[in-house]
Amino acid sequence: MSDKNTREKLIDSAFEEIHKKGYQGAALADILANAGVHKGSMYHFFANKKEMALASIEEKITAYFEMRYRSISSGEAAYLTRFYETVRDISKRNFNLGCPLANLVQEMSNIDEDFDKKLKEMYANFRGTIKAIFDKAVEAGEMVPCDTARLALFATVVIEGSILSAKASGDVNDYLVPIEELVSHLETFRR
Amino acid sequence: MSDKNTREKLIDSAFEEIHKKGYQGAALADILANAGVHKGSMYHFFANKKEMALASIEEKITAYFEMRYRSISSGEAAYLTRFYETVRDISKRNFNLGCPLANLVQEMSNIDEDFDKKLKEMYANFRGTIKAIFDKAVEAGEMVPCDTARLALFATVVIEGSILSAKASGDVNDYLVPIEELVSHLETFRR
Repeated sequence: MSDKNTREKLIDSAFEEIHKKGYQGAALADILANAGVHKGSMYHFFANKKEMALASIEEKITAYFEMRYRSISSGEAAYLTRFYETVRDISKRNFNLGCPLANLVQEMSNIDEDFDKKLKEMYANFRGTIKAIFDKAVEAGEMVPCDTARLALFATVVIEGSILSAKASGDVNDYLVPIEELVSHLETFRR
Repeated sequence: MSDKNTREKLIDSAFEEIHKKGYQGAALADILANAGVHKGSMYHFFANKKEMALASIEEKITAYFEMRYRSISSGEAAYLTRFYETVRDISKRNFNLGCPLANLVQEMSNIDEDFDKKLKEMYANFRGTIKAIFDKAVEAGEMVPCDTARLALFATVVIEGSILSAKASGDVNDYLVPIEELVSHLETFRR
């Protein structure tokens, strides 16, 4: 196995296990077993479980944001419409597990400083990614000039709250219905 | 110590420890030590840590909902205005720890059936409590006739998402600003 493959397998396995069981519930032995990597090899890449966890969260969640949201603002027009398409698309969402970022904020922000710092950074990044979409929409004349930072915060709140709501009830409509309410709200800013 | 006091001490201590550390992170020994109760006495009231946890969550969170939200719909007019006052009031909220109900949904819904069942019931109860406020507002002619179940779901989503957002960033304005956006949205339904 090449170095690159080994590291990727660890990152993928750590992310999956943490998404399922939380950071504290994820056992290093299971992460290693699922990755098919020996503990000795892990130390070649990461000092410990925590360092591996922080790297996996950052890399996997950033890749997800880039794919789903950053691609909207870096593309061409119809920014708002493409944002709606993305938030309405439930094919890549796992409501049983919930949002990995929100889960970790709930679990770790108040008990570990390194997690708190990393999660603050990533949450700010998520909000910034959505703000960039609204900024482009204003620039392209799709939206009236407005406080895009405030609307991005509101959109983030509704997305995260809706995922939680669907996880709580086990009903995917508890995600989809508030998302439509968000869309109606954003439509009031359409030029 | 009377039976009632002992049980109350256990319920309070369990709730506090679980709110701080999550269910899996909360040690039974700490719950007992903080309550000043011996393990033997605990078994007089609860079969185990889990049963005590489920009782504490149900009783403490229900009491909180009753105090903050149920009191609005069971009171007199100005239902919407009193709802705004309640969600704007941050004096009883701990953004460092986040919402105990949301924390537990994130941590436990997908890993334990008993928690899942209890949390589903409580989340539905929270939504129902908010719906009752909007129903009263419609009845009193404060709001136009509207889909109050849908609006209650949306309000729940914004409240929970905003608490998460403030926990993620450590900035109380990340709760207050989206709450004002929710208020603007609800105001469009005012008669």
